[in-house]
Amino acid sequence: MEREEIFKEIAIKTDSKIILIVIDGLGGLPSNGKTELEVAKTPNLDRLAQKSICGLSDPVFMGITPGSGPAHLALFGYDPTKYILGRGILEALGIGVEVREKDMVARGNFATFKDGMIIDRRAGRIPTEKNKEICKLLNQNIKEIENIKITLYPGKEHRFVLKLEGDNLSDYLTDADPQKENLPIKYTSPLKKEAEFTARIVNKFMDKAMEVLKDSYPANAVLLRGFSKLPKIPNMQELFKLNPLGLANYPMYKGLARLVGMKVLDSGQDIESGFKILKDNYPDYDFFYFHIKKTDSYGEDGNFKEKVRYIEKIDKFIPDVLSLNPDVLVITSDHSTPSLLKSHSWHPNPFLLYSKNLIPDKVQKFTELECAQGMLGRFQAINALPLMLAHALKLKKFGA
Amino acid sequence: MEREEIFKEIAIKTDSKIILIVIDGLGGLPSNGKTELEVAKTPNLDRLAQKSICGLSDPVFMGITPGSGPAHLALFGYDPTKYILGRGILEALGIGVEVREKDMVARGNFATFKDGMIIDRRAGRIPTEKNKEICKLLNQNIKEIENIKITLYPGKEHRFVLKLEGDNLSDYLTDADPQKENLPIKYTSPLKKEAEFTARIVNKFMDKAMEVLKDSYPANAVLLRGFSKLPKIPNMQELFKLNPLGLANYPMYKGLARLVGMKVLDSGQDIESGFKILKDNYPDYDFFYFHIKKTDSYGEDGNFKEKVRYIEKIDKFIPDVLSLNPDVLVITSDHSTPSLLKSHSWHPNPFLLYSKNLIPDKVQKFTELECAQGMLGRFQAINALPLMLAHALKLKKFGA
Repeated sequence: MEREEIFKEIAIKTDSKIILIVIDGLGGLPSNGKTELEVAKTPNLDRLAQKSICGLSDPVFMGITPGSGPAHLALFGYDPTKYILGRGILEALGIGVEVREKDMVARGNFATFKDGMIIDRRAGRIPTEKNKEICKLLNQNIKEIENIKITLYPGKEHRFVLKLEGDNLSDYLTDADPQKENLPIKYTSPLKKEAEFTARIVNKFMDKAMEVLKDSYPANAVLLRGFSKLPKIPNMQELFKLNPLGLANYPMYKGLARLVGMKVLDSGQDIESGFKILKDNYPDYDFFYFHIKKTDSYGEDGNFKEKVRYIEKIDKFIPDVLSLNPDVLVITSDHSTPSLLKSHSWHPNPFLLYSKNLIPDKVQKFTELECAQGMLGRFQAINALPLMLAHALKLKKFGA
Repeated sequence: MEREEIFKEIAIKTDSKIILIVIDGLGGLPSNGKTELEVAKTPNLDRLAQKSICGLSDPVFMGITPGSGPAHLALFGYDPTKYILGRGILEALGIGVEVREKDMVARGNFATFKDGMIIDRRAGRIPTEKNKEICKLLNQNIKEIENIKITLYPGKEHRFVLKLEGDNLSDYLTDADPQKENLPIKYTSPLKKEAEFTARIVNKFMDKAMEVLKDSYPANAVLLRGFSKLPKIPNMQELFKLNPLGLANYPMYKGLARLVGMKVLDSGQDIESGFKILKDNYPDYDFFYFHIKKTDSYGEDGNFKEKVRYIEKIDKFIPDVLSLNPDVLVITSDHSTPSLLKSHSWHPNPFLLYSKNLIPDKVQKFTELECAQGMLGRFQAINALPLMLAHALKLKKFGA
């Protein structure tokens, strides 16, 4: 019996409520002997840890550094090695492009074409404002090709997302990107027969775009890569009988939440605004995913001190969350982002689950090392959602 | 996405260096309340453990006692339930027979044939010297059959390895062994159509061997079992972008290292000679597997005291290894061999990983019980190699 079939069979709808707070990039590495979490003063999180069960979770496998996509899928209860999010999809989610089941998206570059060659794959990194203008021009001039709707969404500098909408689109396509400079335009080729139609549309679009952009030197050509469609993913309603709300501020996380069927609301610029929206919507949902981004951003910047300060800020808001009296509260991360590495890492996530249906373990402080001593031990993050459901009494017995 | 595909995609070549020291059969059971590791004085290993992350690894699954083959495959990052090493292959590796992709090998016995029956399956356990003579005689008289090259390699007493070299060989064959005495010669039968050719060769060989051995009573017949070819296994270069060196003294471990693509050098009779070769070759590789056998041998002999003494000897050599300044150093075992059981066991392996990219855990001594408190928790040994790669910064992000 497949894992997902099991959950479809045993998950039940109840009134109990689960809050999952994802403190992005929370886990760290020691600087002067202490990690960000160890330096931060977190009396509320520590007190909560004393009443909870804790552990360390590996987002994918031990040793794997995940992107936000696989890391979140795992936390939402999905196998991140089964549902692969293409580069185009992630780019689209990242700039807030809504992608539906039939759509196909790709990452695009504006590039410079001269004497039959791509001489600059980034068109001299044109300003973002210029990019917006060019996308608008293309959107006005190329609305559809063979009944496939074409839309460009500007990103930063030379980057954009191309979205194709219509029937029979396939993402089995090679990249339409010569990869190196001083090579001719490279068109896409179908990797399967079913993709021949889409390849023709994409290649026609590339030609039409060059026509429209003939006076837009240096941005007078387009490169496309990472063609991708949404993976077919059962939503959280179907799989776990949840009615989930996602609260996030960054497009990527909103997109990931939408992907698994969450209703999504903007959490605003700070924790307070996010909490207010959580509180206001608390009666209407039974699962709340609350994404907090800045810890990851400070980690990526290598800003140990500000990451510590932001953890302390989050700590102050724990009593407010507890005042909602959730049946299950989980505080964890999607992946670690140690300030020392200035990037996502493979280190496991500190994980805390609070509920009345548990034996509080011996963990006294919410830190990486203390969580390692917790009752959950070291586990794969895909188990997090089943644990939340179980402690919220939302899972029936498996077998008789 | 399959596990191996993931590693092919995310592994990168870097200058960082990994040393994996496998202390064969390290884990034990208590005698007078203490295990071999607990009795041994290991100040260097303990000091190292204090700066490392530790855990307990299960070679295959919990409860499974592995042979050296699966135990090593897991440590090298391969699924030991996917790549099955046939008995013939393991016997061949064990006596140092080189096996290539097209070859087929089998374990053989010299046996006694009389009045149409096998009356002794071990030919009275003839002396090894006699075995060598008989193998030589057969090799001189049976060089090939239908373009398949035939070679016998003597083992101990009545045992030998048969190697067939040539095209279109298949190992889908039944054992050519009556299993019990006082039964007639049993020829092999093909289990698939593709093995008919090989079955004919094997059976012709058996007849020819009896002809050649007609005056060699009691060793006047051959039994063959465990027909096997190499599994198709991607090498460590391809899978993990490593340039690996294996250092071992026993043929089995050299063979296992070769199987996954390692360059192999003999480590000599003691730890010092092995370390010298490690040091001399340190600039030329980025992954070093160093196998230490004697702990397992003393375990198998039930010699608790000598196993303790040998662990202490290994401990003295830790500062030398650290002086090479590896980016990652792992000290563990392939499986446990408690002196009390005089055999391999299912008990998990003490595991220590040292690197600068980690939060040292609370483990104070390198023992089974202390490792159980480590940050790695209890984990499957197949995760060991990904952990080494991650801490050596040899893995890119999975997904975006």
